[in-house]
Amino acid sequence: MAEQLLDIDIAKLDLSRPARTGQPESVFAAGKTKEQLLTILQAFERRGAAVLATRCDAEQAAYLQAQGLQGRYDAAGRTYALGEQAASLGGTVAICTGGTSDLPVAEEAAQTAAFFGAAVTRHYDIGVAGIHRLFAELEAIRRADIVIAVAGMEGALASVLAGLVSAPVVAVPTSVGYGAAFGGLAPLLSMLNSCAEGVSVVNIDNGFGAATLACRILRRMKH
Amino acid sequence: MAEQLLDIDIAKLDLSRPARTGQPESVFAAGKTKEQLLTILQAFERRGAAVLATRCDAEQAAYLQAQGLQGRYDAAGRTYALGEQAASLGGTVAICTGGTSDLPVAEEAAQTAAFFGAAVTRHYDIGVAGIHRLFAELEAIRRADIVIAVAGMEGALASVLAGLVSAPVVAVPTSVGYGAAFGGLAPLLSMLNSCAEGVSVVNIDNGFGAATLACRILRRMKH
Amino acid sequence: MAEQLLDIDIAKLDLSRPARTGQPESVFAAGKTKEQLLTILQAFERRGAAVLATRCDAEQAAYLQAQGLQGRYDAAGRTYALGEQAASLGGTVAICTGGTSDLPVAEEAAQTAAFFGAAVTRHYDIGVAGIHRLFAELEAIRRADIVIAVAGMEGALASVLAGLVSAPVVAVPTSVGYGAAFGGLAPLLSMLNSCAEGVSVVNIDNGFGAATLACRILRRMKH
Amino acid sequence: MAEQLLDIDIAKLDLSRPARTGQPESVFAAGKTKEQLLTILQAFERRGAAVLATRCDAEQAAYLQAQGLQGRYDAAGRTYALGEQAASLGGTVAICTGGTSDLPVAEEAAQTAAFFGAAVTRHYDIGVAGIHRLFAELEAIRRADIVIAVAGMEGALASVLAGLVSAPVVAVPTSVGYGAAFGGLAPLLSMLNSCAEGVSVVNIDNGFGAATLACRILRRMKH
Amino acid sequence: MAEQLLDIDIAKLDLSRPARTGQPESVFAAGKTKEQLLTILQAFERRGAAVLATRCDAEQAAYLQAQGLQGRYDAAGRTYALGEQAASLGGTVAICTGGTSDLPVAEEAAQTAAFFGAAVTRHYDIGVAGIHRLFAELEAIRRADIVIAVAGMEGALASVLAGLVSAPVVAVPTSVGYGAAFGGLAPLLSMLNSCAEGVSVVNIDNGFGAATLACRILRRMKH
Amino acid sequence: MAEQLLDIDIAKLDLSRPARTGQPESVFAAGKTKEQLLTILQAFERRGAAVLATRCDAEQAAYLQAQGLQGRYDAAGRTYALGEQAASLGGTVAICTGGTSDLPVAEEAAQTAAFFGAAVTRHYDIGVAGIHRLFAELEAIRRADIVIAVAGMEGALASVLAGLVSAPVVAVPTSVGYGAAFGGLAPLLSMLNSCAEGVSVVNIDNGFGAATLACRILRRMKH
Amino acid sequence: MAEQLLDIDIAKLDLSRPARTGQPESVFAAGKTKEQLLTILQAFERRGAAVLATRCDAEQAAYLQAQGLQGRYDAAGRTYALGEQAASLGGTVAICTGGTSDLPVAEEAAQTAAFFGAAVTRHYDIGVAGIHRLFAELEAIRRADIVIAVAGMEGALASVLAGLVSAPVVAVPTSVGYGAAFGGLAPLLSMLNSCAEGVSVVNIDNGFGAATLACRILRRMKH
Amino acid sequence: MAEQLLDIDIAKLDLSRPARTGQPESVFAAGKTKEQLLTILQAFERRGAAVLATRCDAEQAAYLQAQGLQGRYDAAGRTYALGEQAASLGGTVAICTGGTSDLPVAEEAAQTAAFFGAAVTRHYDIGVAGIHRLFAELEAIRRADIVIAVAGMEGALASVLAGLVSAPVVAVPTSVGYGAAFGGLAPLLSMLNSCAEGVSVVNIDNGFGAATLACRILRRMKH
Repeated sequence: MAEQLLDIDIAKLDLSRPARTGQPESVFAAGKTKEQLLTILQAFERRGAAVLATRCDAEQAAYLQAQGLQGRYDAAGRTYALGEQAASLGGTVAICTGGTSDLPVAEEAAQTAAFFGAAVTRHYDIGVAGIHRLFAELEAIRRADIVIAVAGMEGALASVLAGLVSAPVVAVPTSVGYGAAFGGLAPLLSMLNSCAEGVSVVNIDNGFGAATLACRILRRMKH
Repeated sequence: MAEQLLDIDIAKLDLSRPARTGQPESVFAAGKTKEQLLTILQAFERRGAAVLATRCDAEQAAYLQAQGLQGRYDAAGRTYALGEQAASLGGTVAICTGGTSDLPVAEEAAQTAAFFGAAVTRHYDIGVAGIHRLFAELEAIRRADIVIAVAGMEGALASVLAGLVSAPVVAVPTSVGYGAAFGGLAPLLSMLNSCAEGVSVVNIDNGFGAATLACRILRRMKH
Repeated sequence: MAEQLLDIDIAKLDLSRPARTGQPESVFAAGKTKEQLLTILQAFERRGAAVLATRCDAEQAAYLQAQGLQGRYDAAGRTYALGEQAASLGGTVAICTGGTSDLPVAEEAAQTAAFFGAAVTRHYDIGVAGIHRLFAELEAIRRADIVIAVAGMEGALASVLAGLVSAPVVAVPTSVGYGAAFGGLAPLLSMLNSCAEGVSVVNIDNGFGAATLACRILRRMKH
Repeated sequence: MAEQLLDIDIAKLDLSRPARTGQPESVFAAGKTKEQLLTILQAFERRGAAVLATRCDAEQAAYLQAQGLQGRYDAAGRTYALGEQAASLGGTVAICTGGTSDLPVAEEAAQTAAFFGAAVTRHYDIGVAGIHRLFAELEAIRRADIVIAVAGMEGALASVLAGLVSAPVVAVPTSVGYGAAFGGLAPLLSMLNSCAEGVSVVNIDNGFGAATLACRILRRMKH
Repeated sequence: MAEQLLDIDIAKLDLSRPARTGQPESVFAAGKTKEQLLTILQAFERRGAAVLATRCDAEQAAYLQAQGLQGRYDAAGRTYALGEQAASLGGTVAICTGGTSDLPVAEEAAQTAAFFGAAVTRHYDIGVAGIHRLFAELEAIRRADIVIAVAGMEGALASVLAGLVSAPVVAVPTSVGYGAAFGGLAPLLSMLNSCAEGVSVVNIDNGFGAATLACRILRRMKH
Repeated sequence: MAEQLLDIDIAKLDLSRPARTGQPESVFAAGKTKEQLLTILQAFERRGAAVLATRCDAEQAAYLQAQGLQGRYDAAGRTYALGEQAASLGGTVAICTGGTSDLPVAEEAAQTAAFFGAAVTRHYDIGVAGIHRLFAELEAIRRADIVIAVAGMEGALASVLAGLVSAPVVAVPTSVGYGAAFGGLAPLLSMLNSCAEGVSVVNIDNGFGAATLACRILRRMKH
Repeated sequence: MAEQLLDIDIAKLDLSRPARTGQPESVFAAGKTKEQLLTILQAFERRGAAVLATRCDAEQAAYLQAQGLQGRYDAAGRTYALGEQAASLGGTVAICTGGTSDLPVAEEAAQTAAFFGAAVTRHYDIGVAGIHRLFAELEAIRRADIVIAVAGMEGALASVLAGLVSAPVVAVPTSVGYGAAFGGLAPLLSMLNSCAEGVSVVNIDNGFGAATLACRILRRMKH
Repeated sequence: MAEQLLDIDIAKLDLSRPARTGQPESVFAAGKTKEQLLTILQAFERRGAAVLATRCDAEQAAYLQAQGLQGRYDAAGRTYALGEQAASLGGTVAICTGGTSDLPVAEEAAQTAAFFGAAVTRHYDIGVAGIHRLFAELEAIRRADIVIAVAGMEGALASVLAGLVSAPVVAVPTSVGYGAAFGGLAPLLSMLNSCAEGVSVVNIDNGFGAATLACRILRRMKH
């Protein structure tokens, strides 16, 4: 209980967490002003701690660069990575999407997993409406230690994959879709009700959560 | 507008509907007393009009038989058929289910479709968690003119089938499942959000509705 | 399973689908950048494959034209059609709306059905609050092989039509309305609970889905 | 503010309400023990005040009779009427239902309206799936001062009626139906979103509420 | 059934409705382009038929005026009235609101009721959190033939009023509020569950619907 | 962190909580077998610790008595009190209900508050549909230190009370009602959206929670 | 009932409320034009009555200052305070948040509580995912008379705090979060279902409501 | 795709799945007749394949035993295990619950995990309202490879645990609770919105799903 907290007025930065959880730090950029974001990231930079900002929009990223921060921005995944990528966890995460529109969430997962030390393979646009596309990728997906299934609309990708691979499947519903998709509620319910074993679910659009969970599992595998 | 109505106090029986819609009559038995059900079915019997009672429980059926009605009860589909099955519509309906528990809804559809003149093939327990079971049946399903996909839980069967066949797919969500299935809401939303073309949806557990829709289509095909 | 896929990085274009499903291709333009849309459409154009972009806004369409694509934009239905319209399917789809505001969804259905080979008749603003307007069109609607009922608010149009015609009715709830319409939930539930036989439902605002389903049925009718 | 309250321990009976609101008294029997119900009704009987118990089940009614209460039980509408029916309000309420299963709610409305002094006409099973049944009754319905539209499933009856008559329409959604009817939510939303003018809605299954509202209106018409 | 319809391409204007329903015409302006709105209103103007456009924003109204239309715009209620106000219906509608923010909905009701021939009294900001404000207005409210209760948040105004007056109460939930008001769902449910007799409900924010219903009732009172 | 836990296999009884929170213990009886309940209560009895079992049905209570437990059962509030009532907290809680059916929840609150040391006054059946009943009790209610407002249906009681008293109001929505009450959702939302200051809400039917909160406040007042 | 109301056309300002409820006045600025807001605040200023405007945006505040109003604007809490802060209530409110993004709601609570006379301590960013941060603040929180727990996402802060302190806990769910947070519904339900005693809940984002409730309690404690 | 299916009429038993997924078989007993269940289990028994029936009630279990099946029934977890427990996976699953009522779901997880080869530790009744109980178990929980957090009501246990351990946390919401728990919706949303990294969620009450996922992970760890 003697953890070290850096109180920078707007937040209590938990500098002991890397040691405690075995993961680099991350910051949720959405809803923060660009000045707040800068302040937080600089605190990490000063300590030489690697940190990943997620949900970072282009304007925030441009500001950070302009202020001299030495991070790398990935526009597709909306991540801003500062400091060294973690040492290899020695395992692979296969990131699959149902359609093209799931790409931002998938890339958030991919950038996060890579920064935290996982090897990543991408298998995009293999939704169940054209299931031969999925089969064309199946062999590669089966080689992964963990599968992340990112899908909106009816979200069936997770169930189909879980029936075809033996790795754990982390399902990410996306808010892609319209009408009775209700902002991701449809694939969320669908994934929670998967008739296949081995599926668990994270929040709608939460590519980051899926990736950090995957890395926790990989880290355990090394023990 | 000069239709003929038989007003039997508790209902207005529409004796002109067969001519108008080209379909036999049907009666929804649930929520009716066994005496009301008998009264209604006898009115049809007297006219020699074929009629199908759906959602007919075993007690109602036993009473009807005990009162001398000459119908046939199907316990699995909960249908009570009175009078001649309709002439063949010259087409086939493939009825598919995700799991064993979808069987009552599927059989309601099967009994209805058969009574209304369709040929029926059954493809049960071919849910997407073990997709090889679906592929084992695919050739047979592809021969059908219309596919009815009955599924609870995540309801992915409809999307997968629609991507693999060229026939129209009528999806029936079932209230099978628990937790976040919310009485069929999960597969209903899933099916409405199908990423595959060619899928339409009827109400939760509405095997009857799917079958009568299929027969409307078959009837049109004969024109 | 030896289907041909064109992997253009952001999507896997399924060039074998026309043969497999008997339908031209389509692309959902919403949520894609205009550059992505152009890339995808050009891939089809190079192969001489007809393709329909739906949910295509005016800005996207202008860009496509400016880049030299030879398609036709329909602003009302928000469709961009590239290549030859399909050969006639030899059947008619009657597209009906409850009110003026349902027009964009209805036109999406109309443009799609026409491009895919169906004959289309339009019967707009015939909602049930003034049912004589519906009766004035009834004879014409009855001649169609399939009826598409597009309605928001209370969505009663589908039930009323299904009681008056013998063709299958595909219901499209729209997000028109306010307050307790809840973005189309009210007509969606209403249509799913139709007391009339012969109604099935597609997603809210999904004119495209209704039309492609109709064309699947027409295509079957020709067998 | 000097109203007279009879406090009988479990309830505060408002003996001044008839004078204040111009209506007889009523008691909601559901959820009360038969002894509580008896106590309450006897309090009214002693004062010679007419009272209507609604949602009164057969067992409660039998008990009341056995204890010597001189009321009249209507099993269809689940009402127990004690004392004289109110003097005629000089107006007519037309009570319409979509189907046979809406009958209990309709009869609750009918018994209530009659007890409170309205003339009642019944028009049952005239749902929109067979709209010629509605037209067969239309002339009679148009003669009423107020129309009560009782319907489950898609609840379209209210809109259609409001477009055809000039009287106000009170819509009562019923919990009849299954699946996506969600206990009456579907017709409730449908009726609230009516595209026709002149419709207002009471709670699901609230035949009593519709009738007392109708009587308030009739009473005003006499002023 | 020989009604007269003016088909102006985008809508079927029902010129026989005034005669059929006893009410002037109305047009829902929201979602229509200003050109469409002009076209529709001009059609009425040419026939000398009075018409009320509701949900008309300032830009639409300015355009109509600029094009020479001779109507009157009310910014608070967002109504545009064209032609003569209807003859007096000989009755009064009391329009009450819970708070200041319910004013736009209340004024929509007020403008509509006045244009359709009702006398209107306004009783604003008398919500139940300070119930003495309501009592200060009570005598005046009791003189009305119909009470319209407009309220957001917890929507208790309708119940309290219905317990204090003998006139029918039409409740209008508003989307005022935040958080768990869920766009008006909270007062909608509250009003539907009113423990007071004599309350019926229209759609969220539907001041127009409440007013036209009130006028239907007033019109009946004159018979 | 050196708290004392008694692990009796099925539960970890927290014997240090009275000291920590300043309150007697309580046990939620619903969902426990009568044997489990006995085991738990006996553990407290052996230590001489007073404990209150809530949601205790008649069968459980009879069993406890039969096994020799020396508690007191209150059937109306479904509480079983074992050991001495707490010393007086020196303050008063006014418990108010909208109707007769809210009584079980109100009595749960009353029994709990009394056992935990509060003085309790009861003001039942004073719902807003007959607001003069509330005014008749107002003076007494104003004398209380805390007001608990228990109401189902539209739940307006909390707002009205909070506008009339200066004490904090704890609102308890009840699942009383039917139709669109949706198991207490209607009054829950209503109470959360109260336009009056000074209202907070506990879970549906949670009379116990309201009472223990009230006692926390009273205990603080004594400091 | 002889309260004094100032009717300034758009609102009935209740000048007797401070005396009646023992609290300064407040105005909800959101949804009001800046002119309306000015008019209302000036009415209070003329009377020398202290008033707090909440949900006041920067533009409104700038306008008020430009018009010569002598209030103090707090941008973080969006409050505009006019007149003297209330006399000390002699008690302390501890305001805790789960994360940085809950800050605006927490500051609304803090500014309100301070203006109404409470002492305030702030304990921000102590969410349960890093529970050692909470323990670092625990001693200070335990000294408060009332704890306000402001949290979005899973809202667990309220339960954890209520288990660790003996003061009453007022929980404020925030709309912070995305996906299945559904605008604050997730923490709202979580807080209502708290397994800890002593928690009550106010509306989503309602920092003001929590603070005024806290002050009611403090005021009582002084009696 | 040459998998071996045993079609026993009511189900297609997938005898190749153990090889494909690396897990024993399982059967969902709820909703199956005891005869159907027997037929299915006997098919596995004949092949010597170990199988676990879940959601097996006492009556089903008694019937299976009476028919001579040699399985072991666990009443707490409602599982019926037939055949040998799987070889050790060499890892540990810590199963934690918030309260006593979560026990059936937790035991379903425990029985399943043990049968599939995991070592299991139990940590029951350590909910966050008394967080010292959790800390008393923390050291033991930290030794596990995977943590399963089973909780109803506000479901905060998952977030708190995930912040304290470095293993992946599988959250299982339970339908324990009442009122606004809405059958498990409250903890489901809470867990999906966890502010802690490393949490994923399975369906409400799905102890089986959590356990099989955990075993998938353990199996991977051995690679």
